[in-house]
Amino acid sequence: MNKAQRDTIFSQAKQWIYEAGAKIREQIHTPLTIDTKSNPNDLVTAMDRSTEAFFAKNIKHTYTDHLILSEEGYGDQLDSMDGIVWIIDPIDGTMNFVHQKRNFAISIGIFNDGVGEIGFIYDVMEDVLYSAKKGEGAFKNNERLPQLNRGVPFHQAMISMNHFWLCENRLVEEKRMQQLVKDVRGTRTYGSAALEFAYVAEGIIDNYLTLSLSPWDYAAGMVIVNEVGGVTTTIDGDNIDMLSKTSVAAGNPVIQEKIITDYIKQARK
Amino acid sequence: MNKAQRDTIFSQAKQWIYEAGAKIREQIHTPLTIDTKSNPNDLVTAMDRSTEAFFAKNIKHTYTDHLILSEEGYGDQLDSMDGIVWIIDPIDGTMNFVHQKRNFAISIGIFNDGVGEIGFIYDVMEDVLYSAKKGEGAFKNNERLPQLNRGVPFHQAMISMNHFWLCENRLVEEKRMQQLVKDVRGTRTYGSAALEFAYVAEGIIDNYLTLSLSPWDYAAGMVIVNEVGGVTTTIDGDNIDMLSKTSVAAGNPVIQEKIITDYIKQARK
Repeated sequence: MNKAQRDTIFSQAKQWIYEAGAKIREQIHTPLTIDTKSNPNDLVTAMDRSTEAFFAKNIKHTYTDHLILSEEGYGDQLDSMDGIVWIIDPIDGTMNFVHQKRNFAISIGIFNDGVGEIGFIYDVMEDVLYSAKKGEGAFKNNERLPQLNRGVPFHQAMISMNHFWLCENRLVEEKRMQQLVKDVRGTRTYGSAALEFAYVAEGIIDNYLTLSLSPWDYAAGMVIVNEVGGVTTTIDGDNIDMLSKTSVAAGNPVIQEKIITDYIKQARK
Repeated sequence: MNKAQRDTIFSQAKQWIYEAGAKIREQIHTPLTIDTKSNPNDLVTAMDRSTEAFFAKNIKHTYTDHLILSEEGYGDQLDSMDGIVWIIDPIDGTMNFVHQKRNFAISIGIFNDGVGEIGFIYDVMEDVLYSAKKGEGAFKNNERLPQLNRGVPFHQAMISMNHFWLCENRLVEEKRMQQLVKDVRGTRTYGSAALEFAYVAEGIIDNYLTLSLSPWDYAAGMVIVNEVGGVTTTIDGDNIDMLSKTSVAAGNPVIQEKIITDYIKQARK
């Protein structure tokens, strides 16, 4: 993808995101139609679907050869990352959306032959857009985000992780992860992967760790975090396969290296 | 305290809070003077102290007979809650303040002979003031907060708790608390007790559980949560002693009853 093409797609996507966000803000205080997907913790709202349909319709109309990987069923069935692929989560942080009516985001990553070219994470209720183009830095609205501080001492790190890391689970020995909680400055749980990536990019969280995410949860975040010198890998430090559910570690490379080596590798089942 | 007196103190305190908040917002992007208190997780900033000094000076000048219970040393040594006592945390969520430059609050509870009369929690960077006067309801800025929904099913509850509940600790058996995490809809960790009380009052978090808080962390929150029909107790369900460090459970009374009975009492060491 050349710069001109990237710029054009970026501007178009940004406009759609603002439009979708405005619609969500208008409608959020009307009663929701909620049904459950695979389990009661996995809520999906009518607005989730209509937002995805809005993006899918616009993308397919404007860019007939682009592909879509998304959560709610308006995307394509992909078995490779060839071509230009929009990876979309119309509402990331659905539980926050339903219970809090804030702290959720529209997340869109645009990849070309598997390479992240564009990332958007839009905190809808705060009207804050995190964005990045490959090689051109990351932004919070119009403000350029600085490179992550590689000098943060480990004991001063802030880690975002949910509570399941500390409960008996199939991936890691929880006792070792409890030690991590004690060794860093603080741990937080916000309930939106996209926003947690955004906070990592902003440097207000040093690392984000999660046991299982789908591509639409992390695609945009990867691109944005990459532009501030951060890394995104599996919890074993391997490259992410964009077509699968995977564990994810993202953030400050120095902190992440230590978390993976000294905690996760020792805890790994 | 009669209504006229309460109204006067409320208005005066509110004005000081807005003034202190504006000063913090002005200064927050200048480099901080940080030193550590009892441990590295217990940061205190120059701004923390100057904000407390600002309140102490104003209160002592305006209300010569009022007492102050506070964190940073500008308050009084109290051995009872007799009289009118201002319980002040100038910056609640110090780690957020230092690392995030947001997600912290000014917290002020005003008690008369041990009874909570006024509560303020001011989210400084969002410029959102949660407030309550005894018997007159709670507000988020100028909007009255509704009574908490007693019909929230337990499996749909959102609980705010830090990660130490799930690590080996001296108060509760962590395994049972891990079951709580699995049984509710979601758990969150925000890192500011005052804001977590505010979210409980707003109904976006159903219960807040914490192993150890000081009076200035919960005094304002108790008053505000009480005004929307919420409860604040120790994690054993007992009344809070306002002069001590204590465990705290606050929130929706139906959810809290179940958490205490079915989880904490079974986990208690």
